[in-house]
Amino acid sequence: MFLLHIHYFRKEARDVVTFEEISPAEFLYRNRDIAGFTNPARAIFSSVRELVENALDASDQLRVPSEVYVRLSLDGDATSETERAAVYKLRVEDNGTGIPARHIPSAFGQVLFGSKYKLKQARGTFGLGGTMAILYGQITTHKPAHIASSTGTSRIYRYTLMIDIRKNRPVVLDRKIQVNKERWRGTMVEFWLEGNYFRAMPKILEYLKQTAVVTPYANITFVDPKGRLYKFSRATSKMPRAPKETLPHPYGVDVETVRRLMQITKSRNMIDFMKTHFHRVGNKVSRNFLKFAGIDEKVNPKKLPPEEIVRFVRKLKKFEGFLPPNASCLSPLGEELLKAGILKELEPEFIAVCQRKPSTYSGHPFIVETAIAYGGNVPKKGDIVLYRFANRIPLLYDEASDVSWRIIKAINWRRYKVTPDMPVAILVHLCSTKVPYKTVGKEFIADRPEVKNEILNGIREVARQLKHFLSRREYTEKERRRLATFSRYLPKIARFSTELSGKEKEPDIRRLLWSVRKFEEGKD
Amino acid sequence: MFLLHIHYFRKEARDVVTFEEISPAEFLYRNRDIAGFTNPARAIFSSVRELVENALDASDQLRVPSEVYVRLSLDGDATSETERAAVYKLRVEDNGTGIPARHIPSAFGQVLFGSKYKLKQARGTFGLGGTMAILYGQITTHKPAHIASSTGTSRIYRYTLMIDIRKNRPVVLDRKIQVNKERWRGTMVEFWLEGNYFRAMPKILEYLKQTAVVTPYANITFVDPKGRLYKFSRATSKMPRAPKETLPHPYGVDVETVRRLMQITKSRNMIDFMKTHFHRVGNKVSRNFLKFAGIDEKVNPKKLPPEEIVRFVRKLKKFEGFLPPNASCLSPLGEELLKAGILKELEPEFIAVCQRKPSTYSGHPFIVETAIAYGGNVPKKGDIVLYRFANRIPLLYDEASDVSWRIIKAINWRRYKVTPDMPVAILVHLCSTKVPYKTVGKEFIADRPEVKNEILNGIREVARQLKHFLSRREYTEKERRRLATFSRYLPKIARFSTELSGKEKEPDIRRLLWSVRKFEEGKD
Repeated sequence: MFLLHIHYFRKEARDVVTFEEISPAEFLYRNRDIAGFTNPARAIFSSVRELVENALDASDQLRVPSEVYVRLSLDGDATSETERAAVYKLRVEDNGTGIPARHIPSAFGQVLFGSKYKLKQARGTFGLGGTMAILYGQITTHKPAHIASSTGTSRIYRYTLMIDIRKNRPVVLDRKIQVNKERWRGTMVEFWLEGNYFRAMPKILEYLKQTAVVTPYANITFVDPKGRLYKFSRATSKMPRAPKETLPHPYGVDVETVRRLMQITKSRNMIDFMKTHFHRVGNKVSRNFLKFAGIDEKVNPKKLPPEEIVRFVRKLKKFEGFLPPNASCLSPLGEELLKAGILKELEPEFIAVCQRKPSTYSGHPFIVETAIAYGGNVPKKGDIVLYRFANRIPLLYDEASDVSWRIIKAINWRRYKVTPDMPVAILVHLCSTKVPYKTVGKEFIADRPEVKNEILNGIREVARQLKHFLSRREYTEKERRRLATFSRYLPKIARFSTELSGKEKEPDIRRLLWSVRKFEEGKD
Repeated sequence: MFLLHIHYFRKEARDVVTFEEISPAEFLYRNRDIAGFTNPARAIFSSVRELVENALDASDQLRVPSEVYVRLSLDGDATSETERAAVYKLRVEDNGTGIPARHIPSAFGQVLFGSKYKLKQARGTFGLGGTMAILYGQITTHKPAHIASSTGTSRIYRYTLMIDIRKNRPVVLDRKIQVNKERWRGTMVEFWLEGNYFRAMPKILEYLKQTAVVTPYANITFVDPKGRLYKFSRATSKMPRAPKETLPHPYGVDVETVRRLMQITKSRNMIDFMKTHFHRVGNKVSRNFLKFAGIDEKVNPKKLPPEEIVRFVRKLKKFEGFLPPNASCLSPLGEELLKAGILKELEPEFIAVCQRKPSTYSGHPFIVETAIAYGGNVPKKGDIVLYRFANRIPLLYDEASDVSWRIIKAINWRRYKVTPDMPVAILVHLCSTKVPYKTVGKEFIADRPEVKNEILNGIREVARQLKHFLSRREYTEKERRRLATFSRYLPKIARFSTELSGKEKEPDIRRLLWSVRKFEEGKD
């Protein structure tokens, strides 16, 4: 099937043009930079991250507060040198759904195989991450990966496998079935890889900390190669609402999708076709649209000629009568959980959060959540600190290329009374069925005008609240000073006037002071 | 083979975890942002770029100065609205090798099929670009692509094809064979796509201009949708030396590569294995290494156990006796051609170019070329202008994430007498068998320490030359002023002293002036 001519192994190279096909695993093997496996430090970070995200997704699917256990240990054989690359064993365990036995080999030994190719929000959607980590481990250590999983039945399945990179297929070396006495449910992955923990450590810890902010319902335990224990405990066991699978929105489909739908549809006419396959399209909307597009309601969709399909899609995008997508396929954190996560990790003096209404870019629904935090443990960096999240994944690399960063740079912060020396952090969380990442390594978000707009408005909203806080604080401060002046001089004036008028009793200054104060104490 | 469950087409979604496999074409169809097809403007830019690069590669392979013809026209059906997305026809023609008839469908209708998966320098290496452009055209217009190609034989092959995205296979709709009377050789691609030329125009023109800088031996003709002709004519018909295919360098192989080599090798012992499959490894080096690694020279490589392979690879990286890779597989532009390209497009007042010696990162040989230009048509941007190239491809997006940009930002330019208001441009060209791109869209280069170092040194070298130029100009200026002072006062002093001493004849001032001047005119 994959006729890979390994022609560079010949000593004498011919200069004839040869053609070949390679498998997706082979492609990623040759271009691992693209998936975030640039060097030993980055590789170990990416491996931890991909497996932690799979673990969190697995428990989210089950609506169970996550328990994730990560252990990184130096391989017994390796010397204890930590500043250079060495062989590590990585073990990640979760309490999620577990994987049905027959799918275990492909889920970990085949690229572009996965459970998340759906129209609902999930952390990973590429079907690359977990397998890529194992592939990297294999090409650097040539050791097989160990997987154990149970869906909570009476059995635990244990696999030992490697990847046939040229064929993009798993090679099962061993398979065992154990009795699951304790009805354990979840997945455990263990494999070896070359990495550089010494250099990756700050990023891994930052990643776990930010994951804790955005997943306040998770317990995450990390044991590092020196045996140090990092525990991120949940602040709540409340979980965000679960995302539902959804139909594509008319604005989001392209010719290819419609062509496929028309091939498989059981609908015999266009009215029914519209209603069956599109998000929030009912009888009335369907009728109005077909009228607008000049398409006969009774036409059999299977019989629409290609040019008509193209015209149909173009009309879909121009029709203004479709309802906006509802956000049931999304799972934003919500203002309460977002606040809980930030308070837990940053303990700021002031916090404002904002969840924008659902919006859509090219038919993909999305929700932007923003927050601003001031003071407390917010780091003072001489600039605003930006925390970026997408579908509850922290984004740590290539900040300068991210749309949020550019938005923050373009804002005139003086208008919000924010100066560079202030400890201000901004958090942006984008939830979507399709996050417009610009790289497979999920580093940063592309400039989609609709998304940009929502982020800008979200940031403005929380920034305005911070401005009010800062203004009020400033005002209160001024008032305090004014009142201090009054209370310093008023008694003297009172005494002086009393003496001048020859009266005995001084007037009640407290009432006077009370009447000039313009704010209530305890309110700020 | 590809069991794609199209489950989101069901109206009622079940919340059961389902697993599926998708083809690489399907993956790219769903994640086109990753390949640079983010929006209609970007898509039209990426399409032009991918096809122009294929065209240039095709003539480079043949060692023929390139003739590339690009024509973009508004589709007849579309209204003439140019500020919004519309349907365009894109046609790109080259005078390159041509594609053998049997490979034409796969070369344009299948992702990860290509002729460039080799250990030598080429513009494209992903096997994605051309097909991705056609795929994007198909999903936005549902029209087939037309390909004509001849390898210079008596026949021209014409194909009309579409892509079966789910299977990642071409679907040939029509195939014609024509008599090639004029012995035309090359490839012509024509297809329709939705794009936004109005917004893409500046980037497309900048791309072609920079391509002209780095490909001074190419004639590039571009006719835009309004019929405007842009012609970038060659400044030379001299071509850079052709890259040769090469063997992998011992520092660059991983366990997977060695395992594969051992599977297919005909060598019966390790000495021969080393000599046959590695770059610049002869008898002596081979012996020394095997001694260093403690491996028996006579062992049959096919019988080396897995742990020994891992150890072998680790030792390869630690052995210091391997020769550095030679650069025969690379095709840098060379100082002469680089200069010609810059002079042609920027006409600067001062120019310095530098080609660094071949170097290597993880066993991949690379060469860095740098240039600095001052004045002339170099744009004044209030900052240094950076032109980035990799394997003769201009990189236009995400500058801030590129390693060169960070290097420039970290340099103390005052040391080189460069101030932000000066018209200074820096050009960085990285040639490698494997450019460490961070994205499939080939936007920017990852931070590999070895690459970073070479770029830094290359920039420093040309910057030093600019500093000398600026210093000398400054010094010359100062000297001119000093001499002007002398020549203003010296005649008066001479006359005055002559009068005072009562002499008749004034001394020869010219000789005096000559003796105090410290520079020769005409030299600066």
